[in-house]
Amino acid sequence: MPDSGYVLLTGFEPFGGDLLNPSALLAERLHGSEIKGVRIASACLPVDLARLPVEIERLLDGPSPRAIVNLGLAAGRTAVAVERVAVNALDFNIPDNAGQQIRDRPILPDGPAAYLSRLPLRQSVERLRARGIPAYISDTAGLYLCNACMYLVLHTLAQRGWDIPAGFIHVPFILEQTAQQEAPRASLPLDMLTLATGILVETALAETQTQPLRQVLSSTE
Amino acid sequence: MPDSGYVLLTGFEPFGGDLLNPSALLAERLHGSEIKGVRIASACLPVDLARLPVEIERLLDGPSPRAIVNLGLAAGRTAVAVERVAVNALDFNIPDNAGQQIRDRPILPDGPAAYLSRLPLRQSVERLRARGIPAYISDTAGLYLCNACMYLVLHTLAQRGWDIPAGFIHVPFILEQTAQQEAPRASLPLDMLTLATGILVETALAETQTQPLRQVLSSTE
Amino acid sequence: MPDSGYVLLTGFEPFGGDLLNPSALLAERLHGSEIKGVRIASACLPVDLARLPVEIERLLDGPSPRAIVNLGLAAGRTAVAVERVAVNALDFNIPDNAGQQIRDRPILPDGPAAYLSRLPLRQSVERLRARGIPAYISDTAGLYLCNACMYLVLHTLAQRGWDIPAGFIHVPFILEQTAQQEAPRASLPLDMLTLATGILVETALAETQTQPLRQVLSSTE
Amino acid sequence: MPDSGYVLLTGFEPFGGDLLNPSALLAERLHGSEIKGVRIASACLPVDLARLPVEIERLLDGPSPRAIVNLGLAAGRTAVAVERVAVNALDFNIPDNAGQQIRDRPILPDGPAAYLSRLPLRQSVERLRARGIPAYISDTAGLYLCNACMYLVLHTLAQRGWDIPAGFIHVPFILEQTAQQEAPRASLPLDMLTLATGILVETALAETQTQPLRQVLSSTE
Repeated sequence: MPDSGYVLLTGFEPFGGDLLNPSALLAERLHGSEIKGVRIASACLPVDLARLPVEIERLLDGPSPRAIVNLGLAAGRTAVAVERVAVNALDFNIPDNAGQQIRDRPILPDGPAAYLSRLPLRQSVERLRARGIPAYISDTAGLYLCNACMYLVLHTLAQRGWDIPAGFIHVPFILEQTAQQEAPRASLPLDMLTLATGILVETALAETQTQPLRQVLSSTE
Repeated sequence: MPDSGYVLLTGFEPFGGDLLNPSALLAERLHGSEIKGVRIASACLPVDLARLPVEIERLLDGPSPRAIVNLGLAAGRTAVAVERVAVNALDFNIPDNAGQQIRDRPILPDGPAAYLSRLPLRQSVERLRARGIPAYISDTAGLYLCNACMYLVLHTLAQRGWDIPAGFIHVPFILEQTAQQEAPRASLPLDMLTLATGILVETALAETQTQPLRQVLSSTE
Repeated sequence: MPDSGYVLLTGFEPFGGDLLNPSALLAERLHGSEIKGVRIASACLPVDLARLPVEIERLLDGPSPRAIVNLGLAAGRTAVAVERVAVNALDFNIPDNAGQQIRDRPILPDGPAAYLSRLPLRQSVERLRARGIPAYISDTAGLYLCNACMYLVLHTLAQRGWDIPAGFIHVPFILEQTAQQEAPRASLPLDMLTLATGILVETALAETQTQPLRQVLSSTE
Repeated sequence: MPDSGYVLLTGFEPFGGDLLNPSALLAERLHGSEIKGVRIASACLPVDLARLPVEIERLLDGPSPRAIVNLGLAAGRTAVAVERVAVNALDFNIPDNAGQQIRDRPILPDGPAAYLSRLPLRQSVERLRARGIPAYISDTAGLYLCNACMYLVLHTLAQRGWDIPAGFIHVPFILEQTAQQEAPRASLPLDMLTLATGILVETALAETQTQPLRQVLSSTE
């Protein structure tokens, strides 16, 4: 029986005083499920700059997954945000979970200024909207751990020459969180974000299937 | 069989270019249902200053309902907003559906400066939150038709001496609306707002049941 | 020599961790100056609910001033905000300077629901704009000490039958404050706010000058 | 007499229905002045994607300036925003002045994903704040003409190997603009922005003067 590979899906642990992080819940919920015949393998990343690169390295220390979708929480956002770009910079508004508050430093001193998402951005947003889920393409993933995660993953792919769909998605608070807030910020239901994550993985995989053809064409030039 | 009365629930028609108004959908959805044995009678109000007072007058032209809950849409709000006060002022940012854009005028030249909500504000917010619905007490209902509705209803109750729970609730956009927006604003699911409306009516009615006792006590003083 | 009376101008002491309050600086700067031949007498009010009514009572414990302009800081506002209404409610987001955090209480249990400003709202905004100062009419003064100040002053005037212009103005942060903020909020120059305060007093007094005539007419009826 | 070179300072023409663009006023005001003995040469760029690269090419079609500071308007920002990064993407929320609304396209199909600013970011913000001017480092310059300008200028420098300070600054509305707005957005005085621009040029030039030394050291390694 042929192995159809897997999709790597990650979330982050809670940070900044929150008791939960919806991105970790989403990764956990979808772990082991199959989308278009491809199994999802999930992981929860640390909000800790010292440990993040080690963990990403470890997760990618095998054969290439079919696609990578990294999730994170963006407090105050109103919709699912498909990130366009990861910038080679760290500038934390709050300390990470290890207490480090980095300002104005590159992620990789010799790395390129930025990586553009390898997800089909517009197609992702259109499919989400068609299913009734508010979504947009975001022009900044911030300069905290989420952006660093996106940058490090895309840098690793570039280093290894893995031509797979990969990118970062910011999700809003979920209702369980804002129902506790005196002045509630924007939020969406966890069930809707679960559906959204599935659609995003599916859209990434749909894109993947055109890759082999392209590679064949390139190799004959 | 004794008639247990009814709750008047209103929404507004669409305005400002929107194709739908969630407040009207909510009123329609709950029309005819029963909460704590009391039937809900719903109506859709016009976003038209010339017609609004006539319509409110017509709706209250019979025996007193057990409670009144008026609903309206507040674009950009992040949670269910239980309004605290209705001010005797009209100052429209956009024209109403009849094309009138009133600035700096009282609703009733001889009316009081404001009416405070007759809903149990804090209790309403607490019950919503306990059910996982983000909610807060809002300090301004704006100076458009929503505020005018709240003012006119509470003025009518004051005139008639109807001692019933009554007040205004602003709801956010629903997902069906923001899924069409290029830059999506905050929104909540219609199903959650339907649940919220039921809880608000239930909380208002719970409060009502203590009223007769209080009235008895007052009359014996 | 006839006494042309005085204008009462108040600001508030710093609160919420701020080291300065622009409203107090403005009151201090204009203290003793003359506008349209009327002297300005300034005072700084405490951000302390227990002491505020006492201090307002003390300030109004003599002959009526010609006009009253109360100033306060509204963090995050982008322009001079001429407040339209003071509501009979207290609901603090942060404790006052005495450590009290009041929730959901009336200012005066037997007072009216609200008082509308006695300043010429639209005229004030138009004159400010004509002089290049961004300004608007605000529909809520919050439910902290500023709103309480506005309510208590207007209530006192109503009790005494003093028919004078009076109302509340919220000012934004000044540049000296936001130049220290990592994520600067909106702010305006202190000099511009000083000019604005003078214009607001002048506009209030211009309105006053039609009062004597009116009073004469009334007294002959 | 030795020529001490010049600083290129640019602003943009008005767009999006505005009658003026403060960035053009700033460039015009400083044109011909001298900062640290270096003359400022200003230009006004078109908000027109077809003409922008041509105009930038023309402006840089001579010997290298000593530094380049590009200015643009960012509606709604509250402070001077020193941009950190220019991304190789175009995604317009509104059409440019030629009526083109580009979505999801690269600026240069074969260009790098992004360029980081060549201005001393933190030092610039610190000097502005020390002079009482609210300022911050911004993580996104949008994906309209401002970002394109920053990208194209930095790309040109990279192509030519010009090792000079260069970067983009977003300024808020000025008071002349927001004093006309019904709901005024954040704004700062033109005089303060003029001072800020001078400080930014001065900080860029201060940085320049250490460059030759560094180059000498590098060449001897």
